[in-house]
Amino acid sequence: MEREELLRSLAVKNARKILLVVLDGLGGIPHKDGKTELEVAYTPNLDELAANSSCGLSIPVLPGITPGSGPAHLSLFGYDPLRYRIGRGILEALGLGMEVKPGDVAVRGNFATLREGKIVDRRAGRIPTEENKKLIGLLSERIKEIDGVKIILRSGREHRFAMVLRGEGLGDEVSDADPQKEGLPPKMPEAISPSGRKTAEVAGKFMEMATEILKDHPRANTVLLRGFSSHPKIPHMQEIFKLNPVAIATYPMYRGLAQLVGMEVAETGESMEDEINTLRQVWKDYDFFYLHIKKTDSYGEDGDFEKKVKIIEEFDSHLPEILKLEPDVLVITGDHSTPTKLKSHSWHPVPFLLHSPYTFKDGIREFSEISCRRGSLGIFYAVDAMALMLANALRLKKFGA
Amino acid sequence: MEREELLRSLAVKNARKILLVVLDGLGGIPHKDGKTELEVAYTPNLDELAANSSCGLSIPVLPGITPGSGPAHLSLFGYDPLRYRIGRGILEALGLGMEVKPGDVAVRGNFATLREGKIVDRRAGRIPTEENKKLIGLLSERIKEIDGVKIILRSGREHRFAMVLRGEGLGDEVSDADPQKEGLPPKMPEAISPSGRKTAEVAGKFMEMATEILKDHPRANTVLLRGFSSHPKIPHMQEIFKLNPVAIATYPMYRGLAQLVGMEVAETGESMEDEINTLRQVWKDYDFFYLHIKKTDSYGEDGDFEKKVKIIEEFDSHLPEILKLEPDVLVITGDHSTPTKLKSHSWHPVPFLLHSPYTFKDGIREFSEISCRRGSLGIFYAVDAMALMLANALRLKKFGA
Repeated sequence: MEREELLRSLAVKNARKILLVVLDGLGGIPHKDGKTELEVAYTPNLDELAANSSCGLSIPVLPGITPGSGPAHLSLFGYDPLRYRIGRGILEALGLGMEVKPGDVAVRGNFATLREGKIVDRRAGRIPTEENKKLIGLLSERIKEIDGVKIILRSGREHRFAMVLRGEGLGDEVSDADPQKEGLPPKMPEAISPSGRKTAEVAGKFMEMATEILKDHPRANTVLLRGFSSHPKIPHMQEIFKLNPVAIATYPMYRGLAQLVGMEVAETGESMEDEINTLRQVWKDYDFFYLHIKKTDSYGEDGDFEKKVKIIEEFDSHLPEILKLEPDVLVITGDHSTPTKLKSHSWHPVPFLLHSPYTFKDGIREFSEISCRRGSLGIFYAVDAMALMLANALRLKKFGA
Repeated sequence: MEREELLRSLAVKNARKILLVVLDGLGGIPHKDGKTELEVAYTPNLDELAANSSCGLSIPVLPGITPGSGPAHLSLFGYDPLRYRIGRGILEALGLGMEVKPGDVAVRGNFATLREGKIVDRRAGRIPTEENKKLIGLLSERIKEIDGVKIILRSGREHRFAMVLRGEGLGDEVSDADPQKEGLPPKMPEAISPSGRKTAEVAGKFMEMATEILKDHPRANTVLLRGFSSHPKIPHMQEIFKLNPVAIATYPMYRGLAQLVGMEVAETGESMEDEINTLRQVWKDYDFFYLHIKKTDSYGEDGDFEKKVKIIEEFDSHLPEILKLEPDVLVITGDHSTPTKLKSHSWHPVPFLLHSPYTFKDGIREFSEISCRRGSLGIFYAVDAMALMLANALRLKKFGA
């Protein structure tokens, strides 16, 4: 029996509330004067809470593996990230705020430049985002449906867009319609298995129609498609964990990821304060709350040490309000590390704090990478976090007699 | 290759002796003045031994999972508790001291009250245990065999009993013969798959015969049956680990669990002193000794902090006698935690101490949940304990060249 089946068989409902706060890309590595962002940040509230909680470090996927946002979040939501795969097309669509339903196929698209039968620029000279929007408006107006399959388009930045195909009989076993290198002729999508046939046909027709519509544009006169991916069909948190979950997140991708596992998504504003106000407003209506703070990761990717520190400090200043809600179980962690030294996601285990009436009080002096390592949770896999949260909410029956 | 197959291929016999002491439900969480039972207990002998041993914390099944006695013990005995499942009927029968053999099916039974074709009390008004014994005596005398299947009955407390069916062609794919709710008509056992057919027939006839025999009893005039379970067919410790093991335990369930994995069971008395005398007596005859102390768990479940502390202290006072036997490998741990604060088994990792000539001397100051966390074994899965014990007894060959 696997972990998921085990939890499914043991989870029960009760009135206890679990709050999972994800400070995206929270973890760091020694950087400024040999310190991490968390070590430099002034976080009296987090430090006090950590001293009275069980702490540890969580491994997002496996040691040494740097996760994208998809696998990292799936782990924290209790799903084995090696079992459930979220395709690139799906993530792109979710990131642009598109809805993706079971049965849909999502694809990433590029505007590109075609000259004399060859793709000469796979990014159409990185056309301005505003121009992209106009072109997507045009395509959306002219191509609404192909062979009974609904075509839904949305602009991304510069030359990027996403497409969702919605209809019967669509599979994602389709090769990329992208020559990968410039100077080669366009490549049509091809079914890799029979299940992908209809998708490949529809996508091929879309490319032909789009190329016809765009033919007079000086740079963006064709499109490339790649990352065909079906809705990952993940069993919902309601079903496995018997939770009634809600997501509070400002960025579309995280709202989309939350929806994939069955969370409702609360309307909220752009600031951390907005998010915490939303949390307060929906507090009585749910029993599992996923609160996502994005900017720790954004500044990590920018390599901006000071700004990442500031965001951590801003969160710390809001912590007392959060504690006033009196969650029965509170977890504060990241989905992965984004050390400003690396300017990217990384494989380093992530500080993790769990507070409930049934945790140890580890007495560590500050909430940091090094201190958490000495905590009572040790170093563990993020995919086990859900069982720990449910256990601390007394929401898991005993296994066996 | 799985862990079990690996150990099977590497284990060898030698003269070294391993002693596994299981203080049932040993682990606790901060409770009295923020301390655990182990922290409050005065345990100079355990503390000294811990300082000269390798310590750690063991996770019985998976993080967050609270195990019953069955899975928790299987782990410590080196068996994957998610691979081998011990059914409720088997555990009930073992708990009442019944022998269960390969091919047997065991069932939990209730005396119940039937009125005008409906079950009006699923517990027969919780008849006194003495009355239960008389009724089981009567049924045992009148129903010895059905269709060539031997019927073996034993009284439990109040309305409970267990039944073992012994004969050819019995399977446990049988639905519960229990309406689950009062006010409903009796439910007969039904085969869920063809392998359960004979069992369902025999059990159904037993219910009819029992109801006829009991018909004049004012309350206990019928029976319900549930938890049909086959002998779990676990490969013996002799076969996998090349051990010659013996169990010393006062409670029937643990004696039964030990038998399931091939241990012989020594006759012993009720007290800890009796058990240790027995250990001394059988010391020359075996090479693996499982010594089970039950009351740490019992008082944990009662929520009696002081008495759990006293049992730990009692064990500590016996430790010097145990050390005089000079086991080559000594482990002292629990099968799971039973914090008095929770009055139940819990998911918290369990203090674990391993002593051999080949362990580190962790120098921890006391044997406790928090100190063990800093030990050289770290936090590990209990199912790995057997390999650690065998390794420290130099009973495992090198894997690969």
